[in-house]
Formats: sequence, C-alpha cells, structure tokens
Amino acid sequence: MSAPGRLITLEGGEGAGKTTHAQTICDWLTARGRRVLRTREPGGSPLAEAIRGVVLADWAEGVDAPTELLLIFAARAAHLHATVRPALAQGCDVVCDRFIDASWAYQGAGRGLPGASLMALQQLVLGDLKPNLTLIFDIAPELGLARARHRGDLNRFEAENVAFMQRVRQAYLDRADDDPQRCAVVDASQDLAQVAADLTQILETRL
Amino acid sequence: MSAPGRLITLEGGEGAGKTTHAQTICDWLTARGRRVLRTREPGGSPLAEAIRGVVLADWAEGVDAPTELLLIFAARAAHLHATVRPALAQGCDVVCDRFIDASWAYQGAGRGLPGASLMALQQLVLGDLKPNLTLIFDIAPELGLARARHRGDLNRFEAENVAFMQRVRQAYLDRADDDPQRCAVVDASQDLAQVAADLTQILETRL
Repeated sequence: MSAPGRLITLEGGEGAGKTTHAQTICDWLTARGRRVLRTREPGGSPLAEAIRGVVLADWAEGVDAPTELLLIFAARAAHLHATVRPALAQGCDVVCDRFIDASWAYQGAGRGLPGASLMALQQLVLGDLKPNLTLIFDIAPELGLARARHRGDLNRFEAENVAFMQRVRQAYLDRADDDPQRCAVVDASQDLAQVAADLTQILETRL
Repeated sequence: MSAPGRLITLEGGEGAGKTTHAQTICDWLTARGRRVLRTREPGGSPLAEAIRGVVLADWAEGVDAPTELLLIFAARAAHLHATVRPALAQGCDVVCDRFIDASWAYQGAGRGLPGASLMALQQLVLGDLKPNLTLIFDIAPELGLARARHRGDLNRFEAENVAFMQRVRQAYLDRADDDPQRCAVVDASQDLAQVAADLTQILETRL
C-alpha cells in the first residue's frame, strides 16, 4: 500500500486564472515524481459532468438557490465516489479546480443560503475528507470579471454582478483566515509570471 | 386571493397501484369543483425531469447513496419552486405521486442514510410546507414486486430486492404511525375496486 495522495484545491472568483495555474501545480508535482490527477468541479466523472450540464444550463423556469446547492453537492458526491477517493487511495495527488470552499463562497455567501444547510451537506458528502492544501486566487471582482469577459461567453455564475462577486471574494478570504494551515491566498491581480512564482514558493513551503 | 390549494401525496412501494389511484383522487376532487394539478416525483418540471433522467439512468460508475439522495432533493426543490408552490398559491389542489416520505423510506430506511442529513435537506427544501393528506398504499413487497414485474421493465429502484422493499414498507408504516393526522394507510393488496372504495371513504372523511 502506497501512502494516500494529497488533495490540492484551487479556489477563487471569475478571471482569477485558476485554469492556467492548475497546470503549473500539476507540472510542479510531476517534476517531483508524483502521479497527478487534474480534475474540476462541478464535474470530474461522467455522472458529475451530466449534473454540471444540468446546473449550468439556462432553464426557462430558473434554478432557485436550494436546487443549485443540491445539484452542486450531488455532483461533488459523484466526483468523490468515482474519481477523487479512488485516486487518493492509489497514492495519486489530485489537483481540483474548485471544491468545498466554492460552495461556501458562491451558494453560502453569494446566494445567502444558511450555513447549517451547508454544514449538513459537507458532513454528508465529505465526511472527514479535507483538502491538504487550498490555494485561493484572490482578485478584485471588477478586474476578474473584465478578464472573464475578455475570454469569451460567461456562464450563469460568471454573469453574476459585482456585488455578488464581492461577497464571494470576502467569503474566500474569511475561510483562509479561519483555516490558515490549509489555505494560502495568492494575489491573482499580478501578471501571470509573478503569480506562478508566488505559487511555486507556496508549493515548496507547504507540500 | 383564493384560499391556498391542498397538497395530497401518494406513497408506497412498487406495484402498489399509485398511478391508477392518483386518477381516482383527481376525479374525486374535480367532481367537487376543485382545480387539480397531477404531478409526480422525482420530476414535475422540465428541470426536475432532467434530474430524474440523470438519477434513474444506468451509470457505469454507479450512483452512490449520497448522490442519489441529493439528486432527489434537488429535483424536489425545482419541482416545488416551478410547479407545486405556484399551483398551491393559486388555489389549485396538487396530487403528487411520491414526495418527502419516499426519501425517508427509500434513501433513509432503504439505503441507510442518516436521519440528520434527511432532516437538514427537508428543512432546506420544504421549510414549513407539509402535505395536507398523505395516502400510503401498503402492500407486501413480494406481491408488489410481482405486480411491477408483470407491468414491464423495472427501473433502478423497482429492481431492488425484497429486503430493501421490506425496510421501505416498514418506514412508511412507521411514518403513518408517527403522524396519523396527515397520513392514512390503504391496504393496496386488495382488488382495485376495493382499494378505490377505501380511498374514496378516506377522501370524504379527511378532505
């Protein structure tokens, strides 16, 4: 039996560059001889990707906040069951673009859903599982949304307004404050090379 | 403003004849001048039906119990938001094939998921909403499954074994015991005409 792999999660608002930086992390781990699985939420298994399709689609009836929350946790449960837990058990490191903190930031702070519901869902779906390292890519909503818009079409979440994204940002920063052992904040407003340099330094210190 | 409509739910194991008896209830209400919406779970709105398609499909990765639970509550949240609450608010009676008790029976007692999770989900999705009348169509699993098999292909739930269906049945009976004001048990092993007669008597007493 090899030692279990490590779960590394990337969090942050729109336009924070998470997708680019996920590759930097995977490369850093691979260079150190680690097997690495790169994945994302919502999604990461065929069932979870089907749920992602449902939650991100444009429904004429709308998607109310509790429905959205439950679909995202359903996708997370499937992802953990089919993809993340088996990989960790085989000693593979898992690099995941968004995870549990995104639910607290977007559905909790963003949509105003009660913390008791989030805690119950976290307990049901994660149990004792906790990321080994969570990288929070912090950027002002105005700048992040401008970058995301420049990139192309916005999905339902990316099209939310600045006040919503401000609540999301603050929630991420609060979570980093509450769990500094697990979380590291990266200033994502810097140019990509500087963010990558900061990121590498964090990886060398923390992993 | 008209008075709000009443929510009438039908519950029971496979082969209990709920679909047939839902029509009896709708006819009874219509004959008394009520507007009636007939619906079902999981499903009952375009989004909820899409979630139903996901949860009942045969996934190679399997559908673990927490994922199933969350998808069913996500479908319920969408159904309530788009279909049930608006109809009730307009004074329409809603006759729903399966509702919250099915989650306690199938995912709680059947799959063994913790009551605390179910309670948290119920609070998030239903809030204070409670059916005005819940009809529990009770039948021995062996007989119900034989009837369901005779009807044609079984879905993922209908294909569960007798021990599973026995837990489901007992959970329904326990819930009826715990809330006799809301619940009425109908002996669904009788022939259809007798079940319809019992059902009509219950409607005349309770509604």
